[in-house]
Amino acid sequence: MRLAERTDEVKASAVRELLKLAKDKKIISFGGGLPSPESFPIKEIERICRRVLKDYGTSPLQYGITEGTEELRTTIAKRMKKFGIKCGKENIIIANGAQEGIDLVTKTFVNPRDVVALEVPSYVGGICCFRVYQSDFLPVKLDSFGMKTDELESKLRKMDRKKRKKVKIIYTIPNFHNPAGVTMTLERRKHLLEIAEKYEIPVLEDDPYVELRFVGEDIPSIKSFDRRDLVLYMSSFSKIFAPGFRLGWIVTNEELADKITIVKQGTDLCTNVFCQYLANEYLKSGAIDRQLPKIRKIYKRKRNVMLEAIYRYFPEGCKCNKPDGGMFLWVKLPKKIDTEKLFAEAVKHKVAYIHGAAFCVDGSGHDSMRLNFSNATEDNIEEGIKRLGKLIKKKLNN
Amino acid sequence: MRLAERTDEVKASAVRELLKLAKDKKIISFGGGLPSPESFPIKEIERICRRVLKDYGTSPLQYGITEGTEELRTTIAKRMKKFGIKCGKENIIIANGAQEGIDLVTKTFVNPRDVVALEVPSYVGGICCFRVYQSDFLPVKLDSFGMKTDELESKLRKMDRKKRKKVKIIYTIPNFHNPAGVTMTLERRKHLLEIAEKYEIPVLEDDPYVELRFVGEDIPSIKSFDRRDLVLYMSSFSKIFAPGFRLGWIVTNEELADKITIVKQGTDLCTNVFCQYLANEYLKSGAIDRQLPKIRKIYKRKRNVMLEAIYRYFPEGCKCNKPDGGMFLWVKLPKKIDTEKLFAEAVKHKVAYIHGAAFCVDGSGHDSMRLNFSNATEDNIEEGIKRLGKLIKKKLNN
Repeated sequence: MRLAERTDEVKASAVRELLKLAKDKKIISFGGGLPSPESFPIKEIERICRRVLKDYGTSPLQYGITEGTEELRTTIAKRMKKFGIKCGKENIIIANGAQEGIDLVTKTFVNPRDVVALEVPSYVGGICCFRVYQSDFLPVKLDSFGMKTDELESKLRKMDRKKRKKVKIIYTIPNFHNPAGVTMTLERRKHLLEIAEKYEIPVLEDDPYVELRFVGEDIPSIKSFDRRDLVLYMSSFSKIFAPGFRLGWIVTNEELADKITIVKQGTDLCTNVFCQYLANEYLKSGAIDRQLPKIRKIYKRKRNVMLEAIYRYFPEGCKCNKPDGGMFLWVKLPKKIDTEKLFAEAVKHKVAYIHGAAFCVDGSGHDSMRLNFSNATEDNIEEGIKRLGKLIKKKLNN
Repeated sequence: MRLAERTDEVKASAVRELLKLAKDKKIISFGGGLPSPESFPIKEIERICRRVLKDYGTSPLQYGITEGTEELRTTIAKRMKKFGIKCGKENIIIANGAQEGIDLVTKTFVNPRDVVALEVPSYVGGICCFRVYQSDFLPVKLDSFGMKTDELESKLRKMDRKKRKKVKIIYTIPNFHNPAGVTMTLERRKHLLEIAEKYEIPVLEDDPYVELRFVGEDIPSIKSFDRRDLVLYMSSFSKIFAPGFRLGWIVTNEELADKITIVKQGTDLCTNVFCQYLANEYLKSGAIDRQLPKIRKIYKRKRNVMLEAIYRYFPEGCKCNKPDGGMFLWVKLPKKIDTEKLFAEAVKHKVAYIHGAAFCVDGSGHDSMRLNFSNATEDNIEEGIKRLGKLIKKKLNN
């Protein structure tokens, strides 16, 4: 059969294969970006299901409007104030997870051979989506202060005008970066917005981990400084409620919200209505604010267990950041080791991760790996890191 | 901001506006394709929610694999035998409603200016999706026996080879067509498949209403004759369970299923896992087979009420089919009346429908309207048709 050109550019991603592996119960997987099952408020969900069906009858079971239920959009708009974002329900679109948010924004903005500027490394699901839309990339390195905005500015300045016009989105994950774990400083956030304003390039601020800070103080979102409505802010219920419900949202100006809604209509008519009712009840009843401290506590403990195990079992010369929140560590190994090649052996030893190159659109990352610390139990974190450490040492001594 | 070219081709659809109108409780809406709220098995859903959370714990709340849970795909594969379709779980992809199925298939096959062959009239949500992918159309009329396959064949034969290669999909709704209400005969189904085989064009068989037959005998699906794996069969839980759960599925060969799964991964990672568990329990517990006769009974009664009201209140010269199932009537009015212009007046009289032109890619349909008979109450059907009849008579006498 004759497929579309875009289909040729798409390959199975490492994450997909990893999620499959994670189904083998014997493998200790640090691969998928899975929240801890302990973090799901299962008792609350039972209560909320009963409540929603009792109070709202058949409405949660019917089709809903494309942009999302008025109730949930209103509730989210209120909650956004906590992050310095002033908006109303007309600025919000509920999506089938933040991943659909990325897809809808890309669908709305990106022609084949347009350019997406993004961090190296960046979120593999974002990269996969941009590739489907046949995007080219403008890679920008990040360090422990987030995206190197100086590098972004200099690369944009050096581009000729015509090429620069093709840069349609600057994609960034400011808090507890996936995969790098770092958080962008206030200065860099402001600088990024200046650059976006100067060249009139929309920013896609992907912020699913913002509520998972377990150390330090919140930093205002880029969207909170956005006077010219250039930032599309995005977040998700996957890490604060349950990913199985597939709920995320986009905050943007009304005109763009209308455009994106029309694009969404052709994509899937509307987001799961029943789960929108559940999420609204979860927010409005205050259950979320009872749950978040529990999630943060679990994740802080797991991060510590993983960091300590790395210090104990990994050889000299391995570098690892210490994130203030989120779900990921990024480990740089001695250059000698190719983490993609190491992977097959790791799986033989029943431990999995994602190799760094999967996250890097510039061909780098072969010496790095992403480790998810939220999903495995503490005992398995200890054991899995021990196995990985042994493997790495063996490789270095070969 | 500089949007993608595809965004320029997209306009707000009549259906979207209609779904909004349907929120005004005072309007009797025959517009949206909404199932009857009476058809939702709300007591069963309560029971199933409890059961799923009790039996499966946190698994329904976690991310799942992109193609859908093994359990639901296995259960659907078994059920497909009822429709003469032999397949296994590896042939099935669970989508966020059949609408996402259409989107994923289009995304996989259609380049800008490729061609989709489809019936006139056809499903407005499909047309909206094809437009987003900048598709051109090959319109094929339908009559009371379904798509005029002779016309399709003759149009394909007359095309030059290069143009014909651009025809990527033949899109058809064989049972209780949306919007036309007609069912394609066995002969036409076989002829359609012959044409597809001759020119090697995949068929997208969109079959969400198949279980809503309330008169006559089932006709085998096109997919059931498909020896060369050219048919992508699609159906939905929206009309047999609840549309708010956003669940549909695609049946195709393994190779294509893999391709589509990879495309879906970048689109939304996976379909709502919780609702997949609910649907699986709904099928496996036999609740569906207790529910279906109830739904068919409600719809048959409502169809009869609407047909009788049309005979009573509409003027001479209006033509209306009598569907054997599904949710729609298609009414042709005297040429003098433009249903798009009539719409504003209808809304003033608190009654709504969708004008025929919204479903016709060839510019026809101005004298027609689609009436949904599943959603309104019987009293409202009577009252709404009375109001419409009065309006039409007034227009004719002007």
